Amino acid sequence: MKLREIFATNLRRMRHASGLSQEELAHRAGINRNYVGLLERAANSPTLDTIERLAEELGVAPARFFDDQADH
Amino acid sequence: MKLREIFATNLRRMRHASGLSQEELAHRAGINRNYVGLLERAANSPTLDTIERLAEELGVAPARFFDDQADH
Repeated sequence: MKLREIFATNLRRMRHASGLSQEELAHRAGINRNYVGLLERAANSPTLDTIERLAEELGVAPARFFDDQADH
Repeated sequence: MKLREIFATNLRRMRHASGLSQEELAHRAGINRNYVGLLERAANSPTLDTIERLAEELGVAPARFFDDQADH
């Protein structure tokens, strides 16, 4: 699986676990709501700065976005 | 330490470990040589796609770029 798809899967999973909507997460992270949707569909490649903001708002280590569930 | 700086430190460390120059790594990863220098100075925020290409060329898991040596 490509890294974008791994990131997308983890972002959606961790956002659901946090109980936040795409809109709420986007607002907290200071990014566009539609952009969260694009990222969760692996339709865009986020920058490191965006990855950091999303990790902070979700309360996870940035490296967790790269966990490949297929490995487990 | 901010994630950009952690990434920059790890990129430089892993590039040195691989024995590649900035120019060689840039060529292999299909990115601009000057851009590798910018990333190693934490002066730019790479995209996920660029992080993936650099990890592939360096033969490391992408999550290794986020290892915080200060934690160890």
